[in-house]
Amino acid sequence: MVNQVQRVEDTWRTCSKSDSSGASNSGGESSKESSRSSTPVLDTDRTDRLRDKMRRRTESGDHWFSLEFFPPRTASGAVNLISRFDRMGSGGPLFIDVTWHPAGDPGSDKETSSMMIASTAVNYCGLESILHLTCCNQTKAKITGYLSKAKRLGLKNIMALRGDPMGADWEEEEAGFNYATDLVKHIRCEFDDYFDICVAGYPTGHPEAESYDEDLRHLKEKMDAGADFIITQLFFRADTFLKFVRDCRAIGITCPILPGIFPIQGYQSLRQLVKLSKLEVPDEIMRVIEPIKDNDAAIRNYGIEQAVGMCRVLLESGEVPGLHFYTLNREVATMEVLRQLGLWNEDPRRTLPWAVSAHPKRKVEDVRPIFWASRPKSYIYRTQDWDDFPNGRWGNSSSPAFGELNDYYLFYLKSKSSKDALLKMWGEELTSEQSVYEVFTSYITAQPNVAGHKVMCLPWNDDPLAPETNLLKNELDKVNRRGVLTINSQPSINGKPSSDPIVGWGPPGGYVFQKAYLEFFTSSENVTALLKVLKKYEPRVNYHIVNVHGQNTTNAHDMQPNAVTWGIFPGREIVQPTVVDPVSFLYWKDEAFALWIEQWAKLYEDESPSRMIIKYIHDNYFLVNLVDNDFPLDNCLWQVIDDMFELLDNPQEEQPSKNQAVRSTELSVEL
Amino acid sequence: MVNQVQRVEDTWRTCSKSDSSGASNSGGESSKESSRSSTPVLDTDRTDRLRDKMRRRTESGDHWFSLEFFPPRTASGAVNLISRFDRMGSGGPLFIDVTWHPAGDPGSDKETSSMMIASTAVNYCGLESILHLTCCNQTKAKITGYLSKAKRLGLKNIMALRGDPMGADWEEEEAGFNYATDLVKHIRCEFDDYFDICVAGYPTGHPEAESYDEDLRHLKEKMDAGADFIITQLFFRADTFLKFVRDCRAIGITCPILPGIFPIQGYQSLRQLVKLSKLEVPDEIMRVIEPIKDNDAAIRNYGIEQAVGMCRVLLESGEVPGLHFYTLNREVATMEVLRQLGLWNEDPRRTLPWAVSAHPKRKVEDVRPIFWASRPKSYIYRTQDWDDFPNGRWGNSSSPAFGELNDYYLFYLKSKSSKDALLKMWGEELTSEQSVYEVFTSYITAQPNVAGHKVMCLPWNDDPLAPETNLLKNELDKVNRRGVLTINSQPSINGKPSSDPIVGWGPPGGYVFQKAYLEFFTSSENVTALLKVLKKYEPRVNYHIVNVHGQNTTNAHDMQPNAVTWGIFPGREIVQPTVVDPVSFLYWKDEAFALWIEQWAKLYEDESPSRMIIKYIHDNYFLVNLVDNDFPLDNCLWQVIDDMFELLDNPQEEQPSKNQAVRSTELSVEL
Repeated sequence: MVNQVQRVEDTWRTCSKSDSSGASNSGGESSKESSRSSTPVLDTDRTDRLRDKMRRRTESGDHWFSLEFFPPRTASGAVNLISRFDRMGSGGPLFIDVTWHPAGDPGSDKETSSMMIASTAVNYCGLESILHLTCCNQTKAKITGYLSKAKRLGLKNIMALRGDPMGADWEEEEAGFNYATDLVKHIRCEFDDYFDICVAGYPTGHPEAESYDEDLRHLKEKMDAGADFIITQLFFRADTFLKFVRDCRAIGITCPILPGIFPIQGYQSLRQLVKLSKLEVPDEIMRVIEPIKDNDAAIRNYGIEQAVGMCRVLLESGEVPGLHFYTLNREVATMEVLRQLGLWNEDPRRTLPWAVSAHPKRKVEDVRPIFWASRPKSYIYRTQDWDDFPNGRWGNSSSPAFGELNDYYLFYLKSKSSKDALLKMWGEELTSEQSVYEVFTSYITAQPNVAGHKVMCLPWNDDPLAPETNLLKNELDKVNRRGVLTINSQPSINGKPSSDPIVGWGPPGGYVFQKAYLEFFTSSENVTALLKVLKKYEPRVNYHIVNVHGQNTTNAHDMQPNAVTWGIFPGREIVQPTVVDPVSFLYWKDEAFALWIEQWAKLYEDESPSRMIIKYIHDNYFLVNLVDNDFPLDNCLWQVIDDMFELLDNPQEEQPSKNQAVRSTELSVEL
Repeated sequence: MVNQVQRVEDTWRTCSKSDSSGASNSGGESSKESSRSSTPVLDTDRTDRLRDKMRRRTESGDHWFSLEFFPPRTASGAVNLISRFDRMGSGGPLFIDVTWHPAGDPGSDKETSSMMIASTAVNYCGLESILHLTCCNQTKAKITGYLSKAKRLGLKNIMALRGDPMGADWEEEEAGFNYATDLVKHIRCEFDDYFDICVAGYPTGHPEAESYDEDLRHLKEKMDAGADFIITQLFFRADTFLKFVRDCRAIGITCPILPGIFPIQGYQSLRQLVKLSKLEVPDEIMRVIEPIKDNDAAIRNYGIEQAVGMCRVLLESGEVPGLHFYTLNREVATMEVLRQLGLWNEDPRRTLPWAVSAHPKRKVEDVRPIFWASRPKSYIYRTQDWDDFPNGRWGNSSSPAFGELNDYYLFYLKSKSSKDALLKMWGEELTSEQSVYEVFTSYITAQPNVAGHKVMCLPWNDDPLAPETNLLKNELDKVNRRGVLTINSQPSINGKPSSDPIVGWGPPGGYVFQKAYLEFFTSSENVTALLKVLKKYEPRVNYHIVNVHGQNTTNAHDMQPNAVTWGIFPGREIVQPTVVDPVSFLYWKDEAFALWIEQWAKLYEDESPSRMIIKYIHDNYFLVNLVDNDFPLDNCLWQVIDDMFELLDNPQEEQPSKNQAVRSTELSVEL
């Protein structure tokens, strides 16, 4: 029997508490920094640095892709690019990168700057991002300033480039930045190991280098100075890249080398790029392209085919852990190549019901109030100054102090639609509150409004209805027609698999749950009836009702948050990513009411009847939220609204017990 | 319509964010101390001070009761008294109090001292407790020392008494403690508002007071000095107390006045008490008692009847918010009176699955590892030095550092049974490992062992099987017979009402959930088979297997805790009171293995075969825990054990793929 034990022991990796290294892992210390991640669902992927993620995926043979973008020239271009980040982010890039153009004020606070675009990608779109940085003609102080700012904004990765000298009279400066190597050294010197550093590789040699070998030596110098990995310039033949990798390995470059893939998307853009990068397009490609140079679709199809073929060779070589795409800020070609390669994530598994931010400060965040569900970027913006983010439980965190609404028209919180488009959707002219109800109803049903336009968004929802909300469409239609103007809702869910395509989230093998939620604006007349009705639903239904003046009533016990979305997963603690928090609701209502004016009323002339109608609603309606706590039963919130309509339709039924009714209204308002 | 709004507003209690007082409640500050309780299920009752609890229950007309005990004389008396605290605590007293006897070294660390008994009630039994303190013949330094110690131990309430002068030559001392008033003043002076202070009232006047009125004036002085409420000396007629209350109110005493109820339990104890307290027993009582003075049962029945009748009059008077019982450390009479009055909580609703501690430091604690489920006092003891307690999520807390086992034989961790009783249950002489299996089986099935004795406890379980575990009885029986020696288990639960009499806990209207859990000792031979079997159950089953030498293997992801008990309640965040934590398990295993030796092996002579058998198990068996993550499905853990037995019974079935089997064992042990 003793032998048996021995055998078992031998095959086990031992982790004895008695050895000193084990002790710290098994909790011998009382240090605040536990060796365990404190965010059970988000796991290591969110906390690791980029180079660690690369290493892990390389080791597991799990190919990745990444996407390069350049900063937009206009504010509306920025809004579009950020929408593109969201769409392309869902395909699962390991990272994106944003280029740096010294002439375009790239480090400024302008909404179009490289710095702000990269920061938005990290903070608001949750994308691991690399910011390019060129050092040519820059002072050390200036570069350090950019890097400090990048760090402050949550950026963790820099692509260190020399950049093109401006003007023909450029000369090497003593103690200045002459090569990318100088920049790499400077970053390591000033910021130690904080940033992951990427550098450029040139499969056919840098155009200004004395020779291919000389260029390889420069690359080795960049690595020796502290760079972590390499992305190459574009190329047109797999062999070009594979030879380059072999040559790199031969001189001792061991880091990941990612091929830069450029799917040809048009004749002009190809010519321009080739000129800029001083590359030669191989004859076999030119022979195909020249005859079809005026047929954009044909060229793009060829470009996709050519890129897919080359990528297959690269991946099959075993030398390529991931592919880097020069997107030229376009979606179609790159997505198609990735789809054909099987790298595009068709069913993006959500880690949490909402998109997590990639800012290191927010890495533990796993609880948010439901109110901002359709405006996650606004939530991130209004909480960007927080030092701690709720983790595990909302109530664990300090009282929330939300940012003011003064910068509220921040560009990426703007509607994606133009004023004209909004007027078509929401009505050139409103004649009554009823016409507002009709706009809401059109949005819910996806049916055209009276003027024949589809309502694709509302001030509180910049996108069409979520698939999950679609489950509630019929009920939502019915109540919006009668002036229960819904802006947020979710159905109840009693233990669906975490892999469910509509409501699932989190790791596989788990179960997700929800309490039914409904949030709407409605008239004070309706609210009076509603409060009477709600008496019947205690304690099943939690409610919170508030107007723009802050007058509010709730039956929330002790102003406690109510968890309305949670998940149970194998081997984890409970995750509850969404709560209805009475305190946060008072901050949200400021924003929710302001949107009536800022986004809707201001479409109309001052003093115009249309504006006055919206203003009346803003001033007099109440914002209501309801939670049905009995998630295993059928959602009772529609019955609550039905009962309210019933009471409004048949007020005489109330008369025999009028005093009773008044008293119960009074009772229901005790906070 | 504007009128409508007005009407709604008028009936509402306004809580506008714009006013300054509201702002701090609604989260305008970022202070760490939120105005909200951070423990959603435990609510205010656990965080409030005693006087606030009294006020709230008085306001709601919810009568309470409290229980007085005196410290025991012997260590075994202490063990019994603490069991009594657990039993009587389940009936729902608002508080208990422990008397102070200057001759008995009441402030010492002895297991029988008033100080340690009150501390145990607070820390280990979770009872709100009042420690008596007498000041007569004491120096200020001594008294301050007692109070500091009480505070350090988590005591928050003091009954301030003068006490009887020791010796006949007592005289008032200048600047000393001559009256309880002096003690009240001293407490307020030295400890500000930290303690709630109770003082004694004498419905018939203090025996040493000059007059009834003089005594009332003394009482008023005690209140003016800072006392919070009054408990009276016992009395025999409701009128006596009600007159006393009227007289107190007349001179401006407004605090709660709790009547001291003494159910007559025997002729001798009545005589003794009356003599001590210099009270007169009314004739109508003596007339009943004298004829039956030798019939204990008859006297007790009369005492119950008399107390119930008097209590009814008191409660109906509207002057009495709660009743205080002089228990004389006995259970039957007091419990019967409380049952007849409807004050005894027959169905104690558990706040959490485990008994919460009343130490202020632990007030936020709401997560514990499951391992100590049957040894909660040991868990409290081993974590008593923690500064922070896990709240909301286990992983939020620092790495746990559990107290060492050196004080492990602490008196209240001892078995309640004598060595003789243990030998009868666990075997005077063991002949093989099989005889140990039989002891476990007898415990599980509640059937007598071979010697005809029922096995009422095991070293890991000092009480008979919990009702919940009884649900698993048949399966447990089967596996224990074959050497899967279970010490902890729970069935899976998929959303039972929180009011369920067996598995329910927490506030009403909620749902409770569990993942199935099984913990057992078993031979290394079994473990080898088990590890092969477990491969089939990835990732459904989480396991952790460890021996006394600390060699361990687990498939816990990233050493993360696994929540195995949780509850969803109306208007609250998720509560997950129990986790399986791989780090804590390594501390628990030290204790679990030590119990084999300390509690079982040491019953036998050194070198005796019986001791050697236990020692062999201690040295060679493994401690295993298993969690079935798929709580909505039927518990698969019995199938896992069956598969293990199957493999052990039919090892030849493994042979065709022997290499495969060895490889999979190796794989399964990667940490």
